[in-house]
Formats: sequence, C-alpha cells, structure tokens
Amino acid sequence: MSTNASSRHPAGAHDPDDPVFVYHRGGKLEVAARRPLGDRADLSIAYTPGVAKVSLAIAADPALADLYTSRGNMVAVITDGTAVLGLGDIGPAAALPVMEGKALLFKHFAGVDAVPVCLETGSVDELVEAVVRMAPTYGGINLEDISAPRCFELERRLQERLDIPVFHDDQHGTAIVVLAALLNAAKVVGREMSGLRVVVSGAGAAGVAVTRILQRAGVVDVVVCDSKGVIEPGRGDLSDHKRRLAATTNPRHVVGAIRQALEGADVFVGVSGGSVPEAALAGMADGAIIFALANPDPEVQPSLAARYASVVATGRSDFPNQINNVLAFPGVFRGALDVRARRVSEAMKLAAAHAIASLLPDPVADEIVPSVFDDRVVPAVSAAVAAAARREGLARV
Amino acid sequence: MSTNASSRHPAGAHDPDDPVFVYHRGGKLEVAARRPLGDRADLSIAYTPGVAKVSLAIAADPALADLYTSRGNMVAVITDGTAVLGLGDIGPAAALPVMEGKALLFKHFAGVDAVPVCLETGSVDELVEAVVRMAPTYGGINLEDISAPRCFELERRLQERLDIPVFHDDQHGTAIVVLAALLNAAKVVGREMSGLRVVVSGAGAAGVAVTRILQRAGVVDVVVCDSKGVIEPGRGDLSDHKRRLAATTNPRHVVGAIRQALEGADVFVGVSGGSVPEAALAGMADGAIIFALANPDPEVQPSLAARYASVVATGRSDFPNQINNVLAFPGVFRGALDVRARRVSEAMKLAAAHAIASLLPDPVADEIVPSVFDDRVVPAVSAAVAAAARREGLARV
Repeated sequence: MSTNASSRHPAGAHDPDDPVFVYHRGGKLEVAARRPLGDRADLSIAYTPGVAKVSLAIAADPALADLYTSRGNMVAVITDGTAVLGLGDIGPAAALPVMEGKALLFKHFAGVDAVPVCLETGSVDELVEAVVRMAPTYGGINLEDISAPRCFELERRLQERLDIPVFHDDQHGTAIVVLAALLNAAKVVGREMSGLRVVVSGAGAAGVAVTRILQRAGVVDVVVCDSKGVIEPGRGDLSDHKRRLAATTNPRHVVGAIRQALEGADVFVGVSGGSVPEAALAGMADGAIIFALANPDPEVQPSLAARYASVVATGRSDFPNQINNVLAFPGVFRGALDVRARRVSEAMKLAAAHAIASLLPDPVADEIVPSVFDDRVVPAVSAAVAAAARREGLARV
Repeated sequence: MSTNASSRHPAGAHDPDDPVFVYHRGGKLEVAARRPLGDRADLSIAYTPGVAKVSLAIAADPALADLYTSRGNMVAVITDGTAVLGLGDIGPAAALPVMEGKALLFKHFAGVDAVPVCLETGSVDELVEAVVRMAPTYGGINLEDISAPRCFELERRLQERLDIPVFHDDQHGTAIVVLAALLNAAKVVGREMSGLRVVVSGAGAAGVAVTRILQRAGVVDVVVCDSKGVIEPGRGDLSDHKRRLAATTNPRHVVGAIRQALEGADVFVGVSGGSVPEAALAGMADGAIIFALANPDPEVQPSLAARYASVVATGRSDFPNQINNVLAFPGVFRGALDVRARRVSEAMKLAAAHAIASLLPDPVADEIVPSVFDDRVVPAVSAAVAAAARREGLARV
C-alpha cells in the first residue's frame, strides 16, 4: 500500500546495533536442501549421472518439471525497485530486503518458496523480455513495488506471454483485501454494495485495482481522486490510465477536489498517502466507512475518522481492522500453485475476497477482517482460489 | 564435463517408482527463513515498516546490500539448457533438475546459497541483457551447461559488465581440477610441467579452458584435437575460437588425427566424449598420464589406459582419481564471496588448483586428487582463492 514514510526516516542512517539491522545481518533467506546429500550414492542421484533421467523425462514432457523440480512451489518476487514501500525509486539493491521480507511471508504463511529477483529497471519492453526469459524457472510471478503506470502494461504483457500466474500484489493484493473489508463493513452498516457511493483517493497501482475490483463486485458509484482532485474527463492533465479511469468511473460527473467527491459519500478508501481535510470528512453520509490505508501515517487518523464514520480501518497493526495484503497473496498463490493455474483471473480474485470476508460471518465495526495471524485465512483463500480456477478451466490439475 | 550419455537413456522414460524420480519428487530445493517470524513484532522488522530502515541504508550505500541481505552469500546458477550434461540442447525446464543439483552441491560443500535461473535461450546479446538486469540480486554468477562457442562470449561480456564473479563452471571448474590433478600426476612420474607434451581431446568449453590454464601453469607443448583431428592453422574448417586455439597451441606444428598428436605425448586429457583407438595410445611416451574424463563412458577405459600410462584418472567415482568439478567450484565461490571479489581472475583459478593439489603432498599413482568428500578441500580452496583476490586487489573486504 502507498505510504509516504520516506520523509520520516533520516535518509539511509546505518546503525549496526539497531535491532532492525541486527535482524537483517546476513540476510533473511537461505536455500535449503529438501533431500539428503550424505554420500556418493545421494550425489549420483541428485546430480550426474542419476539426474539425467529426470531431465530427459522433462524434455519429453515439460509439465513434469512441476512434479520433479522445485518450480511447482517456487514464486519469483520481482521488482525493479522503482516504487518500494513508500520510499520511491530506491533501486533494485535497496529493494532486496523488502523482497526478502515478502519471500519470508510467502513461506511462513503459505509454505510457498519464494525468491527475490531484483532487476535493473528499464523500459517495459526490456523488463518483459527479462522476465519472460527467466520464467521457465518459476511456478508463478509476484510483481512488487514497480511504479505506476508502467506496472499496468508490464503485468498485462507478461500475462499475455506466460502460462503461469503473474500477479502484481500492490494492485491485486490490496484490492482483494479492500473488497473483503468492504463486504463486511457494508454488512455492519446494513448496506448493499450496489448502493454505496465510494471515493477512492489515489490513482496509482492500488487505486486503479481497488476501483476495478469494487466495480466488479457491484459498486456502481466510484469516484477516484488524485492529488489534483476528482478524475473526470474534463481534466486536461490526465495520463492514459487516468483517462481510462475517468471514462469508467464517476457516473454523477462530480468535479472539483476531494471535498466535493466526499459530499454524501458512504465510503472513503485512501491508498494515496495524502491527507484529507476534516471538513471534507464532515460531508460524508451517515453510517460512513473510512479505510485510511497509507502506512505508517493513515490519510485520516482513526480517532478523527471515528467522528464521521461508523467503521474505520487502517493498514496498521496497532489499530483495529488492519487491512494488510498478507491476508491475500499467500493464499492466492497457494491456491494457484496447488492447481497449477495458468493465471489469476478476476473471478479468482473475487473468490479470494469473499473467502476472507466469510471468515467473519457476523462482522462488527471493530472486526471486519480476520487477523493476519488467523490460521484459517490461507486455507480458506487457497481453497476458494483453486475452486475458482477449476470452474474457469484455468487449472491444470 | 562433456559426456555422450544421451544415447544410453531411453528417451525421456518417466517411472514414478524409480528411486531417482522418488528422490526428485517436489524438487530438491526450498527457501528457508534465517530469522524468526513468530509474531507481529518480527513481522514489523522483517517487513514494513522496519525493513524500510535497511532499504534506505542500502540506497545510501549500496555495498551494505552484501551485509544486510542474502545477496552476499547468494549465487545464481544460470543456464539456457543448451548443453546439459551430455544430453545436449534439452531446454531450460529440463535443465532445472541439474541446476537444482548444482545448488545442492554449493550448499552442502561450501554453505553457499544458490538458486537456479533457467533462461529461454536466445542470442548472446539477449542473454547478456537478461543476466545483467537480474544481477543486483546475486553475489556471484555460475554459468552452467551453455553451449560452446556462445559460452565464451557470454562469459566475457558479462564479466565486462558486472562487478561480481562470473564463472562458467564447465570451463573453469574443469580446468582447475585438471590442473590440480596434472600437477600431482607430474610429480608421480617425476616430470616438470614445462617439459610435458600434452594432448587435449575436445575443443569445446572444457577443452579451451583446460588448454589455457595448462599454458598459464607453464605447459608449453599443448596440441588440441576435435572430432576432425589436430587443430592447426592449415585447417579450413575452424570456427573463431578454434582459430584462436590453432594460433596459440601446437608449437611443433603437428597435423593429422589424434594418433599423430599422441605420438610421443606425455599427457592425454579427454574432455570430448569420443573414444581413442588403442593404437594411438600405444604411441604415447613412457610414463604417460591419461585423464579420460567423459561421463559416464571415459574416452579410454581405465583398464586399457593402464597398459599405456603410469597415471590414469577419470570423471567417475567408481575408479581411482576422480576428477570432478565439485573439488573446485564450491571453494572458488566460497573464497570469492568471503572477500566479495569483483571477479575470479586467472591467478585465483591457479591458486585454487594448487590448493587442491597441495592437499596430497606425496601423491601416488592411485591418488593424485583428494576425494570430493575430503572436508579439507573447500577450506583450502577458499582460503587460496581469497588470498589471491586480495593480492590482486580484487577483494572488497
């Protein structure tokens, strides 16, 4: 999720005794053997000459690589370091600790083996070529922290070229968890999704994907704002992806700033890292829902939000209702890998969101999403994703 | 090392109950956490928000990535599947079990974390671009099973572009171990390296690298043969890399077949997978040395070789004197990573060979190299490689 933390860190301070640096010393990942290698007999199976049998079998039937190599459970966590957390374009080496962290989460929560791949950035063409070339190594690709709008084209073109899931978590992980939270928040305030007026603040990777998944889930009235105000066709400063947003959102033709957008709105979803004036919040409808997801500083402090909303969520673990991607991506990839899905379809994402929401059949204002440590989450999400893949004919097993 | 095993395998037979397939089920590698991730506190250090401190420190000083990520101990085992074992161009997916095996060896013998990267093949330009782009992720690059002559240009251009070791094991691992073995074999027969007449059979990756390292180690008289006979300037059928060989070897201007080359020769090094007629062996000098390294079928069976040579070695574990790359590459990378070497220089390779040979101060005909399970090998090689890197100013720590 979008954050604006960089201004709060002394730039690049290195303190070897800081517990965070101590924890990171030597890195967070290692590669381990799943098989013994104790003697010459093991060696002659794991490597030449024995391994030749397995290689020849895969050469004859490439699908066997998913059974007889680690690929079937191996996800590449790929970044070019251009939009790392809220720190911006800090480059591939500086992105590596974040990608290692992501790989730890994959393993811890879902038993998925994940390896960072940090790429020198370049044109979308160049990134597509690099990722396509290395793809035979992996069972799935998690794109991470790649700047918008390049991330949209990169993901689309990779998925067109590859027959394994390509999933940009900053988009779809966020979108899935926001939808899960909104399904339950709507229940809390007794509203249908189709009747909600939603304002999304932020038109980057997360904002675009949140908007799209909410529309697919039945929300009709979505208004998207960027730092310059409501995205609508009359604006002359819109990039391609914002022009597409303008064409497909804002049915009441709102113009102006976020204050105008929030007038009478039921839902605010902040994925921008900006802040929202209190006067704008005051214009929201009764029983409003505020998701202020920027980390570490929400667009609206929860105490302030509570004055104007019936349900409040943030991205932080120290307030109720933490909306965190870790509720989604481990189970999404677990489910996709389990059935060797060819991609992660829109139906699979919707199924993931419903699975998360369903774990709390009677949500209350202070508990609209399960805890990230709720061990029912990954099994529920992965089962739902796998079932959706099967329904759509995207499962290979 | 070059082999010609493909004709001996029923092509691609898949037997799930075969112990080799059972061993490979689910793959041989996994990614493991080096740090605990038990609770929210761990999560907030391993991932956002804590990890941001480490990323910012690396953004300010990129060398810190070697300290605070797994990169400092992480090697990519990169192939395009064009020359896998002796199986030929079987493609990247079929190469994956071999690369996983290599990664197991790296970890088991030297504690080096290694991950396979199997690339769709392409032009040398395309492979260079792909590897350069992913290089920020790794502390070193082991090229593997890439066909000659592309492998020569690929390695050279990658090393020109990258400031981490790029090491094509089929070339240099083989060359280091052959030199180690020859140093001790020469001792056994009481000869100086500079006085030996050497014939190298095979002008691919291994043959070229063996020839070069022997020349650097003081051998003056090397004759290289390919399947058509002696490589010499009069041949009209030579590719670029063979023309370079012709220009820099064969000082006595031998012409003809391997039989002519072996007339009076002291040393035969087979890295070709062909076979050598007995009559040709009969022409070798007294006290000859035969290294028949093709796997699984040596160019000369050891029992036959023993009739014409005082010292015989093969690539196999079931005969004395196994010349196996695993004596070299784990220690080479261990030493290079330990000092964060910028590359693996010729001096570092020579140092590795001398370190291996020195473990047997009094070699005898049946023991010219240590066992691959001799646990003195990696420490000796890595120390020698690290020291050589320091002497040459290639060490960063």
